[in-house]
Amino acid sequence: MSPNNPVKREIALATDILKQRFGERLQTGAAVREQHAHTLTYIKNQPPDAVVFVQSAEDVRDVVEVCAQYACPVIPYGAGSSLEGQLNAPQGGISIDFTGMNQVLDVHPEDLTATVQPGVTRKALNVHLRDTGLFFPVDPGADASIGGMASTRASGTNAVRYGTMKDNVLSLRAVMADGREINTATRARKTAAGYDLTRLLVGSEGSLGVITELTVRLHGLPESIVGGVCNFPTVADACNAAIQTIQYGIPIARIELLDEVQVAACNQYSKLGLAERPTMFVEFHGSESYTAEQSETFAEIVADCNGSDFSWTANEEKRSALWQARHDAYWAACALRPGSEALVTDACVPISRLAECVEQTREDIQSNGLLAPIVGHVGDGNFHTSVLIDPDDAQELAAAVAFSERLSKRAIEMGGTCTGEHGIGQGKQKYLRSELGDSVDFMRTIKNALDPLGIMNPGKIFSA
Amino acid sequence: MSPNNPVKREIALATDILKQRFGERLQTGAAVREQHAHTLTYIKNQPPDAVVFVQSAEDVRDVVEVCAQYACPVIPYGAGSSLEGQLNAPQGGISIDFTGMNQVLDVHPEDLTATVQPGVTRKALNVHLRDTGLFFPVDPGADASIGGMASTRASGTNAVRYGTMKDNVLSLRAVMADGREINTATRARKTAAGYDLTRLLVGSEGSLGVITELTVRLHGLPESIVGGVCNFPTVADACNAAIQTIQYGIPIARIELLDEVQVAACNQYSKLGLAERPTMFVEFHGSESYTAEQSETFAEIVADCNGSDFSWTANEEKRSALWQARHDAYWAACALRPGSEALVTDACVPISRLAECVEQTREDIQSNGLLAPIVGHVGDGNFHTSVLIDPDDAQELAAAVAFSERLSKRAIEMGGTCTGEHGIGQGKQKYLRSELGDSVDFMRTIKNALDPLGIMNPGKIFSA
Repeated sequence: MSPNNPVKREIALATDILKQRFGERLQTGAAVREQHAHTLTYIKNQPPDAVVFVQSAEDVRDVVEVCAQYACPVIPYGAGSSLEGQLNAPQGGISIDFTGMNQVLDVHPEDLTATVQPGVTRKALNVHLRDTGLFFPVDPGADASIGGMASTRASGTNAVRYGTMKDNVLSLRAVMADGREINTATRARKTAAGYDLTRLLVGSEGSLGVITELTVRLHGLPESIVGGVCNFPTVADACNAAIQTIQYGIPIARIELLDEVQVAACNQYSKLGLAERPTMFVEFHGSESYTAEQSETFAEIVADCNGSDFSWTANEEKRSALWQARHDAYWAACALRPGSEALVTDACVPISRLAECVEQTREDIQSNGLLAPIVGHVGDGNFHTSVLIDPDDAQELAAAVAFSERLSKRAIEMGGTCTGEHGIGQGKQKYLRSELGDSVDFMRTIKNALDPLGIMNPGKIFSA
Repeated sequence: MSPNNPVKREIALATDILKQRFGERLQTGAAVREQHAHTLTYIKNQPPDAVVFVQSAEDVRDVVEVCAQYACPVIPYGAGSSLEGQLNAPQGGISIDFTGMNQVLDVHPEDLTATVQPGVTRKALNVHLRDTGLFFPVDPGADASIGGMASTRASGTNAVRYGTMKDNVLSLRAVMADGREINTATRARKTAAGYDLTRLLVGSEGSLGVITELTVRLHGLPESIVGGVCNFPTVADACNAAIQTIQYGIPIARIELLDEVQVAACNQYSKLGLAERPTMFVEFHGSESYTAEQSETFAEIVADCNGSDFSWTANEEKRSALWQARHDAYWAACALRPGSEALVTDACVPISRLAECVEQTREDIQSNGLLAPIVGHVGDGNFHTSVLIDPDDAQELAAAVAFSERLSKRAIEMGGTCTGEHGIGQGKQKYLRSELGDSVDFMRTIKNALDPLGIMNPGKIFSA
């Protein structure tokens, strides 16, 4: 801390007051602070000044009220799995750790809703739901917290069927910058009552309010789940198969693309033994006859698009192994180069442009000598490259950042976005205006109106 | 006009300037002005001072720029089918008529998107799409404009399967209060790029910006469509059938409830010959085998819930007659009492409370001697009563308004909303705060920040 810096002095005052209120639940040790800043990917760690371990909405209100008094930044922390620096504290401030707010408050099976505290992780929620015949579908891979997933508008492998967090948060409670807690909507399945504050807060990365409770939509566990694998001579063929699948109206639950580099990484890491070609992992949900019907129609599409080796199974063990491998793709990629860190990109384009975008990106990877496996939520036109770099090699980092910049530009030029599901955070700010032009000014106007002191997770989405 | 009123004087100046710009495309005749204000339901007609018939986004920018200069209200007009006074001009001002902006600009069949001007109606869009195998699903009954449907966050009979306008608008262009036109998102299927301005504008009833273009999601026309009818001894039984249907994960496309009063009205108006009991109209979409499977599972649920006479058909003529009758339910209700007008309510509750809410509402109707048929989008927990009144009888109007107030309160107390799909407009303002509390203050803050002069459809959602 630098007590000569007036901002730091105010933060120190806020911290002192909160220390009296929270005692041992406020921590200032370097290790704790660093753990609560960005620890994944290449973005550098910018720790907060203190971490408060909250247990209730009242705790959150108290933190925000004190912070508002001292213009002290507030940074919500869920499970620490965000990828664009959303947890960093570039101006210092107080991190609010939600791991102690991990209660499922209410489940309404008839309404297909659950009300949870923000620190509940998606896996914990699904464990809680295991006897209800229901599940919460959004699955970003990591066992992220529901609050964090809402904040970054997360999605993942089965968004193609069940939608993203925007579609699966029905309402939320949030503490706004003046310390007041609001409820954005009722539990009704639909509403036309005023502005959609739910959707405004979902994806706002903690920059407008701190989420204290969420009511989410649940879905019936399918009677039958069938998983499959197939491969294609080219990425373009795989993308065509995805386009046809969507156009035929097959309600495919998951349709994931791995390029041959990623398949090789998964073979090694997860012992899969797959042919090292562009590969698709798919999953179908429904009644037994319906999943069989979907699989058969999909098999025809695969054949039509020059695909091979399509095999499918309802066996849970085999399916789980497959999807575990998919979820471990990030770690499998990292293992290709021990000691490396990954710069993960998140381009999302209209599906008609996906093959072209992936192919150009692969050429870019090759011509620049990068090691960067590709996985894609191909039904949504969203794909990730994990550029493996030595984080201490400035030249490698610069090359990876330049690659990411070219990819973002490519996606935007194709009518897409630089971020399908990771958010803007710190890492993608420079692309936001080229993507959305003057819209950014109106976002900023909203930010300034709702958070006039600029204390809510400053330096995210926009520069502080 | 009252030239002594300074507001009216400014409006007159704006009108004069726009008259020079638009010539015959600006109209000030009383008949045209009245047609462009609220003409449906009991809410009184408050005409604008002038109507501009725009043909391009440039026209819209010109209107808003001039209006911003003179603090003159701007009221967008699509097809005139909104039900809560959204088109009224309580402070006067300029109505922007979008019927001349009725072009489908672009269809991307591979991406399942269409880009349209706001004056395109949902039927016109579907006619345009007829050779593509795709359709736009949102169907509020009236042949509303897509821009208007986005503005009120409309939904309708098949929202249970395909979602509301919030789910089916991918991005939009809008002229904001300072005359700048923004693009809220790209054509990517999902995005995490900054605040969700798309969802903020959808449902904002023209109070934040004037929509000039929309990119909407399309869906594949199902291979098979099966429609059916059944009836139940009680509304509670019908609601239970709906709950079970959703819980079983049957992707039912439409599930509509009509109470016996509405069935009698439809029998008379549309010559149906149905048993006058609580009745459900349903529809299933999918492959031939899958719609058959859905119908059979649904038949079991109907039997389980004491339902009778379930018959279903894939015959298009019979299905169309049924749904035409459902779409004419409003006119059928009005015909029960020639010369009457309807006060249409729009409560939406968690589906677990629907039976209770509908039953209490029926008791309320009976004990107050009202004539008010009920129809419901029962899969979403949303139902409408059409209270038929003599608009010139102040006592009848007061009784209907008091009923609507009790119903709104009932829905809110059950964890629901006073408006599932019609919006707040002028008619529901008094319920918004009891439903959402301090959230309304933050909505207002956003409104004031984005429209500091208060020219964007003033007097809607909030009082002016």
